[in-house]
Parts: sequence; C-alpha cells; structure tokens
Amino acid sequence: MVKIAILGAGVMGSALTVPLATNNHEINLWGTELDTDIIEEIRKTGFHPRLNLRIPKNVETFSVDQLDLALKDRQIVVLGISSEAVKIIAKRLAPHLRKDVIIVTVAKGLETEPTGKILTMPEVIESEISKEFRGKIPIVAIGGPSIAKEVAQEIPTAVTFASKNIKAAELCQKIFSTPKYRVEITTDVKSVELCAALKNVYAIAVGICDGLKKRNNLETMNNTKALVFTYAVKEMSKIIQTLGGKTETVMGLAGIGDLDVTCKGGRNAFFGEILGSGMTSTQALDEMKKRKQTVEGYPTTQKAYELGRILQKEDKLNIENDLPLLKELYAVLYEDKPADKAIKSFLKKLQPPKGS
Amino acid sequence: MVKIAILGAGVMGSALTVPLATNNHEINLWGTELDTDIIEEIRKTGFHPRLNLRIPKNVETFSVDQLDLALKDRQIVVLGISSEAVKIIAKRLAPHLRKDVIIVTVAKGLETEPTGKILTMPEVIESEISKEFRGKIPIVAIGGPSIAKEVAQEIPTAVTFASKNIKAAELCQKIFSTPKYRVEITTDVKSVELCAALKNVYAIAVGICDGLKKRNNLETMNNTKALVFTYAVKEMSKIIQTLGGKTETVMGLAGIGDLDVTCKGGRNAFFGEILGSGMTSTQALDEMKKRKQTVEGYPTTQKAYELGRILQKEDKLNIENDLPLLKELYAVLYEDKPADKAIKSFLKKLQPPKGS
Repeated sequence: MVKIAILGAGVMGSALTVPLATNNHEINLWGTELDTDIIEEIRKTGFHPRLNLRIPKNVETFSVDQLDLALKDRQIVVLGISSEAVKIIAKRLAPHLRKDVIIVTVAKGLETEPTGKILTMPEVIESEISKEFRGKIPIVAIGGPSIAKEVAQEIPTAVTFASKNIKAAELCQKIFSTPKYRVEITTDVKSVELCAALKNVYAIAVGICDGLKKRNNLETMNNTKALVFTYAVKEMSKIIQTLGGKTETVMGLAGIGDLDVTCKGGRNAFFGEILGSGMTSTQALDEMKKRKQTVEGYPTTQKAYELGRILQKEDKLNIENDLPLLKELYAVLYEDKPADKAIKSFLKKLQPPKGS
Repeated sequence: MVKIAILGAGVMGSALTVPLATNNHEINLWGTELDTDIIEEIRKTGFHPRLNLRIPKNVETFSVDQLDLALKDRQIVVLGISSEAVKIIAKRLAPHLRKDVIIVTVAKGLETEPTGKILTMPEVIESEISKEFRGKIPIVAIGGPSIAKEVAQEIPTAVTFASKNIKAAELCQKIFSTPKYRVEITTDVKSVELCAALKNVYAIAVGICDGLKKRNNLETMNNTKALVFTYAVKEMSKIIQTLGGKTETVMGLAGIGDLDVTCKGGRNAFFGEILGSGMTSTQALDEMKKRKQTVEGYPTTQKAYELGRILQKEDKLNIENDLPLLKELYAVLYEDKPADKAIKSFLKKLQPPKGS
C-alpha cells in the first residue's frame, strides 16, 4: 500500500483513482480552484460529475485550501492537470516536496520559454523544483492512448510511463498496473512528450479529411484519411529522430497509439473537421470559442513549424520534403489557405519530381 | 499514350481505368468468366454495376473468349484479380507475353506451396512465366491504402508500386499517376507483400474490439482499439524485419496506411467484430459464408502463425514475447478461445514479468 496524492480532480486525475484503488493504495484527491464543484459533488453524492464514476472508497477528497493536508506523507504525487496549469501547480507543490517523493504527470504538451527554448512538461515541472531537490526527485510522464473516461470505466488500456529514472518508472509501473490498466516503461522521455504534443497537430490534419468528406457529400474518404495518418506518423518520426529520439517510441503506444485515439474523437479532430467542411481558420477558432473548447493542436502547430524551421536552418531536415503535411497544415491554420487546396498541394508533393 | 490491358473487370481492375484514362492511355478491359455480367452491363449502359462508375471512353471491353485480342500490342498488363485467381490467370497470360511487357498486379496475399514455402504474389506470377522470359519481365505490385470505390470516385489516394526492377516501377509511376492518384515507388517488394497479407490478419484483431464494445454496451473502446492497432504495427514490423524487410515500408503507405484503411471497413474487420460480439470462430465463419464473403485474414492468420513458429525454431523471434497479439488471434480463430479471454491474455503479456 502506497500513499498517493492526486493534484487536480478533473477527468484524468480522477480516472486514475480507479487503477490505484484497485491496487488498494491510499489516495488523496485534491481539487484546484477549477475543481471546487467536482469536489463538492463527490463529497455529496460519491460520484464524479464529469466521469459519471463512483469514486472508489479508498479515496479521500481535499478542497483547494487543503493542499498541505492532501500532500501529508505522500510517496507519489500525481499532477492530474492540463498543460496550461502545470507550471502554476508545480510552483505550489514545490515547497511541500521531500527527496523521497516521485512526481507523476499526465499533462501533455510543449511550453515555449521567452527565449524560444521549447520545454517538455517534465522540464517545466523540474524548473519549479527548488535547487536542493532538482534532478533528485524523479518525474514520470504518462504517454499513450488513454481517454480518461475509458480508464474510469476499466476499458482495457495500455500506457507508457517515461522517466529518465528507470527505477522510478518501474516502481510506478508496479503501483499503477492492474489487469485492465497496463503500463510499459521507457527512458525516452523526450520522444514521449514530443509525440504527445505532435499528435494534436496531426489529429487536426486527419480531421480535415472528415470535413472534406462531408463537404463533398462522400460516403467515405478512407484512402485519404489513411494517407494523412501515415504521413502524420512519418513526419512525427522524422522530427523526433532529428531531435535524437527513438523511432521505436513513435511506433509504440505514445506515438501511433496516442495519435490513433486522438484522431477518433476530441477537440483537435473536430477542429480539423470544421476546417475541412469549409471554414477558415478564424471562423473555426470562433466556433471552438463558442463551444468553450480550446484546441491544443492550434498553438502547437505553430511551435512545431517553428521547430521545423530551426531544424532546417541547421540543415537537419527540409520542410518541403520531410514535413509536407505540417507545412500545409500550417498554411491552413495561419495563412488562411483553404483546406481542400492544402490537401491538393500536399498530394502534389508526395512524389519525387522525377516521377511525375 | 501507352497501350494497356487490364485483366479482370472486378472493382479494382475497373477502378484503375480512371487514373489511366485521365492520362489518356488506351485501355483494354478484359473480363474473366466471373465478370461476364459486368462486361455485358458496361457494353449496354456504359456503367460498371458494382462501382456505379461510368467507364471512361478510352476503355474498350473484352469478354472472356477475347483474351487474345485484349492483349494485342499491350505494353502494360495489369492483373486486376484477387489473389486466389492470380495463378490461374497468370498461367493463361503466359503464352501471350513478350519480353517488353511489364506486369502490374493488384492482388495481395501470400500463397503456400505444397512444400510449405510461402510465396508472394509476384513470385506466384513469376513461377507461371515461361523460362525464356522469367526474371526478364518486370512485375510491379501495388500496395497501400486504396479502396477501389474511392479510386473510381477520384478521392485522393496514394499507393506504393513495388518492384525489384526500379526502372519499371518508375515507368509505371509515370503512367498511372494523376493529381488524385499518387504513386510512390520502392524495391522492397517482400515487405509490401507481407504487409498486404498481414494487415488482413490484424484488421480482424482490431475488429474484435468493436465487437467487444457492442457486446459490453460501451460507448467507445478507443483505448483498446488504439492499443491493438499499435501492436499490429509492432508485430508486422517484427515479422518483416526478421525476414529482411524494411521498417520504413511498414511505417509507410503499404504498412500503416493499408492497415488503417482495412480496419475502417471490409470483411476482415467485420469478421473480427462478430467474433468480439461473442460468436465462436466456427459460427463467425458460417455467418460470413451466409453472406457469401470470404475472409482473407482467416487463412492468412494460420500462415502467419506458422511463419512465426518457423522463425521461432530458427531462434529469430519468440512468439510469446514478440507476437503476443498474433498468438491470441490464432487461439481465437483456430482453438475456439473466446475473444474477450484472448484480449485479457494479451493484456497480461504486455508488461515485462518483472514489472507486474
């Protein structure tokens, strides 16, 4: 039995109580200021309102002013919060840390520093840890295809735990694994985090095919979708290889797996769909705003394209040849290129000039 | 303008008239004895009955007794027939061949010789060519995600042309490519053919998830589907690497692309779905027979498993560790293991023993 705190009572933080409770751990679930209603509802009814999940009995809830209590004697701290809030919560967590704690994070994405340097989520967290413990407290990042609702429903799921500290990853693997929640481990943190960010970008591109299908009144457009999906994997792999990551990771749960699940639903794929159906980028962003939904893949496309340009300047890749899909997606999102024209330009680039 | 014969007026052979006619080639479309009704219908109405396609005007039709005429002066002969019939039609084609002909084949799959040796489709065709021309007539195999109906509708499609003779592949790339039908080329014929066969096997496994979802009355089961899809790619890659093929091919249109499109519809995925919904293998096969549908992935699963056993004997891989999904699928198909139990066993094997 391990003492665990989950910071953030949103869908993913709360869903993780299920495998952890199955393994009889003692879980403190702390809600941020955004989770006040959720914590109240759990206390009143026992149910998580957004997951429709009966919170397991070995979970104790803590409200926003009880962070201190929630963290008391914890061996594992799970940051169950989205990437935008990671920095803030990591800052609040920092003074409570002891050296024998392991941090687990579910947040996915990249953050750009004012200097232009791109940081992964574990690096963002690391930067908030006091110098005394920095580099000593292991950070484990969760990657792979895991829709929170399905984890809560105990639908068979397999994820990747990535940490530079393989012993910490192994320990967390033991603590989290159940017959329904399987955990693979890797030390290739950079690739896992890059996959997590890039899959949102490419899910927009796959979503565009669904929009074009509807717009053109077609029954299916599966050839095009499969083509775009394939190039998504290819380009993710190219970027990650160039940055020193492993193709193996892209071919695994964190890459292909997470991309696949992201293309099958969610905000990024939907954003792509409305772009494909004929909206301009501005119109599509307005529509998402109306629905009160952020599209992580939108800013990440810009970051990925910038990264591509940096790598091109360093002669490590060529955007035109190596990242034709990213190039066209960037044009749709930031240069108001119509999605159907972008697909046409993408198709044109697919063959070596000699052959056409 | 090139003179082309397409042998077989089924959906794929006929769909290929569209890009070829776009490029103004002169096309002879010959129907086998199974295509008699189709040829008649095209002659009467101009429409292909199964594709609902108006056959382009630069196509001339030939009935089963006109093979001789259909092949007159042709520079390219496209075998537009399914894998079961390739051997028979190649035998009939053989006496008509000249040395300056290129054969293009759309058939996908593996054939087992009485000796147990596994042959790819180009090898099957090669074996029927007279000794005089054997090894001299280039054979180009088409791989990648291309549903015939979508090719006929000019929905953007990209495929891979694989040939040991790269010049022949390049020439065919020029002849077939249109802005909507893109052609990549490779010399990695073995991997393309193995992908084409194995994707049917693994599409059954992905289909099983859809069946389990319905059976358990779940809204989604996308985590599991993404997991199975990822392992499908992983295991295809393992088999193909072991046999000397390239991972790059598996990561491209012929591998990931074709697997993706096959999982999104078709008989193999449907067969998996009814297995997942609770049918035994025998019941599911009966159901497919009632629908007059063959399931290519069924016999191919046995062939793939046998191949795995041979490679295991040669100490090149370990079925238990390297092909856990194939092992479980084989058990469902040939040992009447219930699909839900197979998924459970598969999940169990996902982690290294040390970690669980």
